[in-house]
Amino acid sequence: MAVEISTMERICRRSKAAAAQLRRMTPGAKSAAIELMADALVRRTDEILRENEQDVADARAARRPPAMVERLFLDPDRIMEMARGMRQVAALPDPVGEVESGWRLPNGLEVARHKVPLGVVAVIYEGRPNVTSDIAALCLKSGNAAILRGSTVAERSNRAIAEALAGALADAGVPDDAMILLGTDREELRRLIQMEGLVDLVIPRGGEELKKFLLEHARVPVIYAASGNNHVFVDADADVEMAIRIAVNAKVQRPGVCNAAETLLVHRAAAPEVVPAAVEALTANGVELRICPVTRELLGERAQGMAEATDEDYATEFLDLVMAVRVVDSLEEAIDHVERYGSGHSEAIVTRSLHSAREFQVGVDAACVYVNASTRFTDGGQFGMGAEIGNSTQKLHARGPVGLRELTTVKYLVTGDGQVRT
Amino acid sequence: MAVEISTMERICRRSKAAAAQLRRMTPGAKSAAIELMADALVRRTDEILRENEQDVADARAARRPPAMVERLFLDPDRIMEMARGMRQVAALPDPVGEVESGWRLPNGLEVARHKVPLGVVAVIYEGRPNVTSDIAALCLKSGNAAILRGSTVAERSNRAIAEALAGALADAGVPDDAMILLGTDREELRRLIQMEGLVDLVIPRGGEELKKFLLEHARVPVIYAASGNNHVFVDADADVEMAIRIAVNAKVQRPGVCNAAETLLVHRAAAPEVVPAAVEALTANGVELRICPVTRELLGERAQGMAEATDEDYATEFLDLVMAVRVVDSLEEAIDHVERYGSGHSEAIVTRSLHSAREFQVGVDAACVYVNASTRFTDGGQFGMGAEIGNSTQKLHARGPVGLRELTTVKYLVTGDGQVRT
Repeated sequence: MAVEISTMERICRRSKAAAAQLRRMTPGAKSAAIELMADALVRRTDEILRENEQDVADARAARRPPAMVERLFLDPDRIMEMARGMRQVAALPDPVGEVESGWRLPNGLEVARHKVPLGVVAVIYEGRPNVTSDIAALCLKSGNAAILRGSTVAERSNRAIAEALAGALADAGVPDDAMILLGTDREELRRLIQMEGLVDLVIPRGGEELKKFLLEHARVPVIYAASGNNHVFVDADADVEMAIRIAVNAKVQRPGVCNAAETLLVHRAAAPEVVPAAVEALTANGVELRICPVTRELLGERAQGMAEATDEDYATEFLDLVMAVRVVDSLEEAIDHVERYGSGHSEAIVTRSLHSAREFQVGVDAACVYVNASTRFTDGGQFGMGAEIGNSTQKLHARGPVGLRELTTVKYLVTGDGQVRT
Repeated sequence: MAVEISTMERICRRSKAAAAQLRRMTPGAKSAAIELMADALVRRTDEILRENEQDVADARAARRPPAMVERLFLDPDRIMEMARGMRQVAALPDPVGEVESGWRLPNGLEVARHKVPLGVVAVIYEGRPNVTSDIAALCLKSGNAAILRGSTVAERSNRAIAEALAGALADAGVPDDAMILLGTDREELRRLIQMEGLVDLVIPRGGEELKKFLLEHARVPVIYAASGNNHVFVDADADVEMAIRIAVNAKVQRPGVCNAAETLLVHRAAAPEVVPAAVEALTANGVELRICPVTRELLGERAQGMAEATDEDYATEFLDLVMAVRVVDSLEEAIDHVERYGSGHSEAIVTRSLHSAREFQVGVDAACVYVNASTRFTDGGQFGMGAEIGNSTQKLHARGPVGLRELTTVKYLVTGDGQVRT
């Protein structure tokens, strides 16, 4: 009987076969291959830029949003930056082979819990072509075969980058199929995310529509990149200057990212001092505010033209220079607000009280809980974990920054001298 | 506007509220509550047995398979055993609050990675009523609220056990909703596994049908209990006596469980000595064999009546006194066989060669890889991890025995003195 298998299954099987070879590669060989890939990227700058120019021209002709075109655009500096990113990954400690723990059983069996690669990791991404080189480096470093699926808008750029990297892989003796760049067909994507037993993990890096598509159709494990509806809570006895500095930084320093703050919560006891000063600082930085009735009262005339914060505002990740401000009666009310509206990403309290700090840390159920610091630090690089592949608000496997270690699983190696179970 | 929410959503919200209280409980309070639950179980033996008798009678009247009736049946000893199991969980180290790692960033921020409860854990199980008390103890110990959903056949027993435990929880000051036993309605189950954001983990403990239902409908994270299509590979230079002891133990000691072996692979160089002896030992233990052509040749007349092993046999988890035997040309062929047919659960090599042992451990992609020991040790209790909630062959979050630690997630606590990102 001839068994016909789909093209996608064939691709995934090639990827799985490559994964079996990758998990045997030494840390040195993997780093050397990543260095070669970085070299190739720089060496082939002209070809990559030529293809990128076409993508950018097509995107402009199709009247894509300027922000998207900006993300798509490459120049020699950006390519140098991509190569530098790869070299940084090459220099990170290798997560594979780490013995997490080990022990002997009463019968003499030795158990050791080893970190090993996941196998086949598929990454689905939109826009930025630099993701192609980031993922290639992170997957190779962690010993995983990568299946990449970029967006139509960056198709030529991604292909040029992938070809440069592939040449270097061949030179480094890494199997061809260690990295496979797919086309941008939607039906192909659907098949990819249903390859149970072949694809070990899918990481989507894209908008809500992509997420919804995966929730609907995926039959392989997925780590969803996080949305961050984050809060800064100013406690009764906070240092006012610090509170305002943190609130402004968390909102303003880069408003379009998932670790920015969206709502400022202020304890009633601190509100008369904090609210007017915070509002002044935020508006001076161009932030549009949505305020609660108590805030309006405290601001008096200065509240003119500010919209009332609605339930929907509290539930929204603005990703923009917009912030809600709400006065709460107590620490508990602040925690309840976070529990109700937060997305479990990054939450901060500003306080001098040890009791409040501890209550907030225990009471808030989020990946990262900050005391007297900006939410903007939630990031693999900032945390000193090296490059990240995303940020997770889910609780299984990876919570917070998803770095090299999160691209591994464990294997129990058990060694004996003939033990059987009685 | 009045927002109507479904009964299932209401139940899950109660569970989530209980989880917020549970994560604040001290290790001592949790252990004490589990001890009280164990006491209550024993104290209410009569009531539990009365309800169990009815379940058993109903199951017999409905002509359920004898094995199912046997699993359902309780007596005072079995209830004592359940209580003892709970007390063992109470005595285990508390996984919550463990600081996995921590470090200071260049800017002085202190980052600490804490183990915290997942939140709401739902367990769907079939048959055995003792699962009710096991899960209750494991979830409470790990600080999780439990939603339990047993099978129709054990409905009265489960309810009686849950009522006994609930009384003890109230005495111990644990919130009522820390443990919620659902009815056995199928539509309710479907709603349960779609409660995104409310249910943090679903663990199915049941057959393939339940698994399929979850794969189809679940929108919350699931850890699938494993099926184990496991192998014992006897290498060229194995100790023959040891090889046979391990093969027999892995197949015979308890054939119906997921860590039993299903296929014996023998290196061609060892086959003339190993195959006849192994076949004799296995058949003496009542094992029915499915053999490859080389095995048939080696056995000569003794092969009479033995079926030829098919591709389907190699792919089957017999869960019975049936075993396939195949001679392979090399270690590599053994690894390829395992890669092709194995389910990534437990794989064993018997060898004297360090090289073979290392090749097998690296080459085989499974949760547990044994050298010179029986596959039957894959078990949380055997591994010294305490009670287990199941065994996982998936690679994300939990691989191998799923114990208390696997019922937790992490939370990064970050403490500063006003740091903002620049």
